[in-house]
Amino acid sequence: MSDPSLPTVDRVLGVTAPGGFRAGTATCGIKASGRPDLAVLVADRAVPAAAVFTTNRVTGAAVGVSRDHLARRRTMRGVVASSGNANTCTGPQGADDAREMLRLAADELGCDAEALLIAQTGVIGRPLPMAKVRPGVPQACAALAAGPDADAAFAEAILTTDTRPKQAGVRLDLAGRSVTVAGATKGVGMIEPHMATTLAFLTTDAAVAPDDLQAMLARAVADTYNALTVDGHQSTSDTMVLLASGDAFAGDEPVAPGSAVALALQQVVTAVCADLAWQIADDAEGGTKVVTVRVTGAATAEEARAAARAVANSPLVKCAFFGGDPNWGRIVSAAGAAGITSGPETMRLALGDVVVFEAGIPVDADADALAAVMAAHEVTAHLDLGAGDAAAHCLTCDLSCDYVKINAEYTT
Amino acid sequence: MSDPSLPTVDRVLGVTAPGGFRAGTATCGIKASGRPDLAVLVADRAVPAAAVFTTNRVTGAAVGVSRDHLARRRTMRGVVASSGNANTCTGPQGADDAREMLRLAADELGCDAEALLIAQTGVIGRPLPMAKVRPGVPQACAALAAGPDADAAFAEAILTTDTRPKQAGVRLDLAGRSVTVAGATKGVGMIEPHMATTLAFLTTDAAVAPDDLQAMLARAVADTYNALTVDGHQSTSDTMVLLASGDAFAGDEPVAPGSAVALALQQVVTAVCADLAWQIADDAEGGTKVVTVRVTGAATAEEARAAARAVANSPLVKCAFFGGDPNWGRIVSAAGAAGITSGPETMRLALGDVVVFEAGIPVDADADALAAVMAAHEVTAHLDLGAGDAAAHCLTCDLSCDYVKINAEYTT
Repeated sequence: MSDPSLPTVDRVLGVTAPGGFRAGTATCGIKASGRPDLAVLVADRAVPAAAVFTTNRVTGAAVGVSRDHLARRRTMRGVVASSGNANTCTGPQGADDAREMLRLAADELGCDAEALLIAQTGVIGRPLPMAKVRPGVPQACAALAAGPDADAAFAEAILTTDTRPKQAGVRLDLAGRSVTVAGATKGVGMIEPHMATTLAFLTTDAAVAPDDLQAMLARAVADTYNALTVDGHQSTSDTMVLLASGDAFAGDEPVAPGSAVALALQQVVTAVCADLAWQIADDAEGGTKVVTVRVTGAATAEEARAAARAVANSPLVKCAFFGGDPNWGRIVSAAGAAGITSGPETMRLALGDVVVFEAGIPVDADADALAAVMAAHEVTAHLDLGAGDAAAHCLTCDLSCDYVKINAEYTT
Repeated sequence: MSDPSLPTVDRVLGVTAPGGFRAGTATCGIKASGRPDLAVLVADRAVPAAAVFTTNRVTGAAVGVSRDHLARRRTMRGVVASSGNANTCTGPQGADDAREMLRLAADELGCDAEALLIAQTGVIGRPLPMAKVRPGVPQACAALAAGPDADAAFAEAILTTDTRPKQAGVRLDLAGRSVTVAGATKGVGMIEPHMATTLAFLTTDAAVAPDDLQAMLARAVADTYNALTVDGHQSTSDTMVLLASGDAFAGDEPVAPGSAVALALQQVVTAVCADLAWQIADDAEGGTKVVTVRVTGAATAEEARAAARAVANSPLVKCAFFGGDPNWGRIVSAAGAAGITSGPETMRLALGDVVVFEAGIPVDADADALAAVMAAHEVTAHLDLGAGDAAAHCLTCDLSCDYVKINAEYTT
């Protein structure tokens, strides 16, 4: 589950739970399955917006267009999202298509196209079927509404091979105001049949200035989405957007950075991101287990992160978790190859609460206790390197035959 | 197949094909399967020796002992190898056990224990069953012989979950002398049921000084074993040894570095390593295809290597090859996330001879030609980054359900 030190989230709350937002969806036919594939999330007026994107050198057209718009203005009316086609490796035509989608939405919303962001996910290297997409944009805008049904429809329309929609929110009292932070996400790691993507759309009715909102999102992502890996294959289209309507502040000044209110709001945004990231790991393609790799006692934060990620990305480690096999040598050896400076003689490894390796030699662990740890749906591997004070974690899943099947047979 | 620019190898030739070497094996019972698990390779006298080892911070006891011996002397009588137990994460007892094995062999061979190297592979974190190992060492030494049967027995005794033994050699005329280079290897990548390891034992009857031999091995490894990945999980026990008896030189001076003879010998050593590495990729656990990822046009050699390795290690790419799915977006996006400076607009990607992506947009490739490329047992993905002159390649395999099955269910 999410970090117990964070506020408790409520998965009933979706993107329109905070005041000042509406969502609408359409089924254009981008997806051959005939499932909804277009979604629009809008604020009642242009509001402070923050976003983070993939760092891949190969990016979808949507990422380029959204970055461009955010470079020109820091308040946005909303975001258009489509699923089934990543609009990646599609050249100048792809960028033209993404911009046309935003112009169509802007016409409906009565705003400038640059006041909209766009996020797309799906197969790479195929042109967007614009003849299908064009009528879908006004259709989604016509369906704009707030409430649980709109939330559910939005969370559904952004999915690709996810088995279930993913949303979460927190409602809290913030200095006498009822403030809500909520979000929806998609992605089952990078493990789409074509090319997966993590998209996340977060909303709040707190009032936060654009720069502070960006910093808040960056901090929330660092230990949640950026500490999540399913298969180590980074998408071309990862996009997270956070919009702050300010509706709950009734015209009051935005949150002051560093204030108690700002810190509480940060905690809540981080909690929503942590829960959404957890839901992604829990729905990872073929995944049967959620695995947390926690590294402590590292010489540096970089070594801690590298070791946690190396363990989480090792196919051997992931197969062992799939099989419920306490094959801890794979964990120690994966960490050892991650560029750490310390050696096995100072390491301590526990699976759940069961210590299996300490001070360079195996611990004669209770086999039944170990089997129980490995059989659970959630497993934590805690590796202390015994070399310093730095720590990091990585959230991942196991590697199953279903992952291979899903990803081996798509276009042929 | 191996690089066509390299000399042709002959897989009939094994470790005792060069003059001056003998090999012997035993079945100690380290392996529960009852298959041979101990092997000794010796030169008739102490001869120049070169070796390379894993760079993992967690190493098997054998690696430490061998490094220690090579730091003390540059000529060796031979190497002892055992399979079924990696003797890793076994603390000081593990090092004591490795040294005891060498003492037992040295007693039989009438040499100093420090004149022997040791290599071990198998499960991590379990003490060596020394009661079983002790009688095996003299038994293997008593079986020492030269010839095809001894070669085959040696190649068999070093295996773990390999489905077949792997050896290769070249016999060439070197300035009027008949010189042989040969070797045996094991490892199906890192994909053992417990913890895999690549071991390789190379012999030649050329005369080469120790430092030159080490340089020759390092150069041979760079583009062969070091450009091989099955699952990106580096072993704790990787060990490659090259022994040069000099028998074919009949007392003549060793090969002069930089001479035509040295260059020819280098080519042959590299060819043997390339073929052995290819045999490993071809026998990768669960693997059904041998995949070569070739990156050209990179800005730097580092970028070329990083891109090739990222593509070769992507589970999504490997699953696509397993399914025969020409899902090239995964290749481009994996390279894009590898820290390269160039973008998709200068890239060109071909699967086999079929170009699928060029100048930022998809190429309308012939579907039948592409299907034929993807259906073959050997597939090459050639990605030109269009940014410079640097190139690199990586040899790998596909990712199948069998890989998951093999690695999910071992100790439980």
